[in-house]
Amino acid sequence: MTRAAIRAGDYKGATGHLASGFVQSNIVILPEAYAADFLKFCHLNPKPCPLLALGAPGDPRLPTLGEDIDIRTDVPAYRVFKDGKEVDVVHDIKALWRGDLVTFALGCSFSFEEAIQEAGLSIRHCELNLINPMYTTNIATLSVGPFGGPTVVTMRPFKPADAIRAIQITSRFPQVHGAPIHFGDPAAIGIADLGQAEYGGDSVPIYDGEIPVFWACGVTSQIAVISAALPYCITHKPASMLITDRRNAEFSVF
Amino acid sequence: MTRAAIRAGDYKGATGHLASGFVQSNIVILPEAYAADFLKFCHLNPKPCPLLALGAPGDPRLPTLGEDIDIRTDVPAYRVFKDGKEVDVVHDIKALWRGDLVTFALGCSFSFEEAIQEAGLSIRHCELNLINPMYTTNIATLSVGPFGGPTVVTMRPFKPADAIRAIQITSRFPQVHGAPIHFGDPAAIGIADLGQAEYGGDSVPIYDGEIPVFWACGVTSQIAVISAALPYCITHKPASMLITDRRNAEFSVF
Repeated sequence: MTRAAIRAGDYKGATGHLASGFVQSNIVILPEAYAADFLKFCHLNPKPCPLLALGAPGDPRLPTLGEDIDIRTDVPAYRVFKDGKEVDVVHDIKALWRGDLVTFALGCSFSFEEAIQEAGLSIRHCELNLINPMYTTNIATLSVGPFGGPTVVTMRPFKPADAIRAIQITSRFPQVHGAPIHFGDPAAIGIADLGQAEYGGDSVPIYDGEIPVFWACGVTSQIAVISAALPYCITHKPASMLITDRRNAEFSVF
Repeated sequence: MTRAAIRAGDYKGATGHLASGFVQSNIVILPEAYAADFLKFCHLNPKPCPLLALGAPGDPRLPTLGEDIDIRTDVPAYRVFKDGKEVDVVHDIKALWRGDLVTFALGCSFSFEEAIQEAGLSIRHCELNLINPMYTTNIATLSVGPFGGPTVVTMRPFKPADAIRAIQITSRFPQVHGAPIHFGDPAAIGIADLGQAEYGGDSVPIYDGEIPVFWACGVTSQIAVISAALPYCITHKPASMLITDRRNAEFSVF
């Protein structure tokens, strides 16, 4: 099983192509003192930060996502932050765990990508075996306490008729970012250059007759946490997600 | 009641702004000899030609759309065709009725416009009290017997985020044209100039940051009938529709 290999330290990379059919999750881990504010932040910004599961303080389990999940070992790569600065990238956080840490698991667009592909549409970064392109926008989140900052998006190019179909399909998945938030002109949402993907994503070609379509991305939660400059927090490394036992199809509301 | 006024000959114009909440319908009336082919044509082209009701040969009633409907009097304006040429525009067809005529009632985008507006979006031609812009495209229908020709579309401009919302809303109404079939570049579907609306529709301004969104239009059925050059047929005049007793909300599938 994929999660077991990750837990054993045998896989430390991106997860987009792994465990087809299963929900993957963005992870934010922070001290209990900030958890109430961050929960409210997720509540107010459900498109980029759709909350799938919330851990109990000090408890590394997320039983609603998988009976045996241990968040200290089950993510391929973690970013560790002190005072808002990344101080390390590690592959387990057993030695870093504390009794006051609270885990937030947020939906990820990989879940709706499967549904898009099942409908016969092709997703460019999947075709090309690349990591999905991510960009910072000028769309501000609604801030709560120290948490705020811009919305991050993923981009997938489609011809208009396919974009319409992709909008329909992803609308069925409100807990994993749902419908796009923009399409067309990148500058309209503050993206200067689609050729400069961020957060470890790859830029992808956009062919004649295609337009870029933008979905809210869970990396927004990392930006919110980093900009909050918390004394301590841990996130997954973008594109290296927690693989859960829940099926993507469970999250389709129609 | 609006239909009574139309029946009495007191109203002969466009119906888009009338009888809010009630389904309006495109009308095609043709000889029984062609009815089977035209029914198949509608079946194969459900986006432009969604069949709401089918009359019995020689019977001017459409009881599933309204108990007292008489298709000979209840449309504000009719186009009469002989051998594919319009020979008259009239306001009732009692004198033109025949025992072999079959009525096809097809869904109309007015039904989803109400839902779009209820969601707080503004529709340009409604704002400006104009008739919705219609255009011939290069998207061919699937032809059956003598029936074929291009798909006609209506156009509504929106900002991308509102276009995404409008796609979601209209997807709920598959029997009244459903989701758009294109957005963005008009030339991609063979429209040379959005400033030249056809079929009695008005062109509307597209403001900065907006993109044109195109829905299949019931006028497609008229083009199919005209291009078939039937010895005899009658249609409604575009924008002057049959007002039914069915509520738009009945046709929302979610």
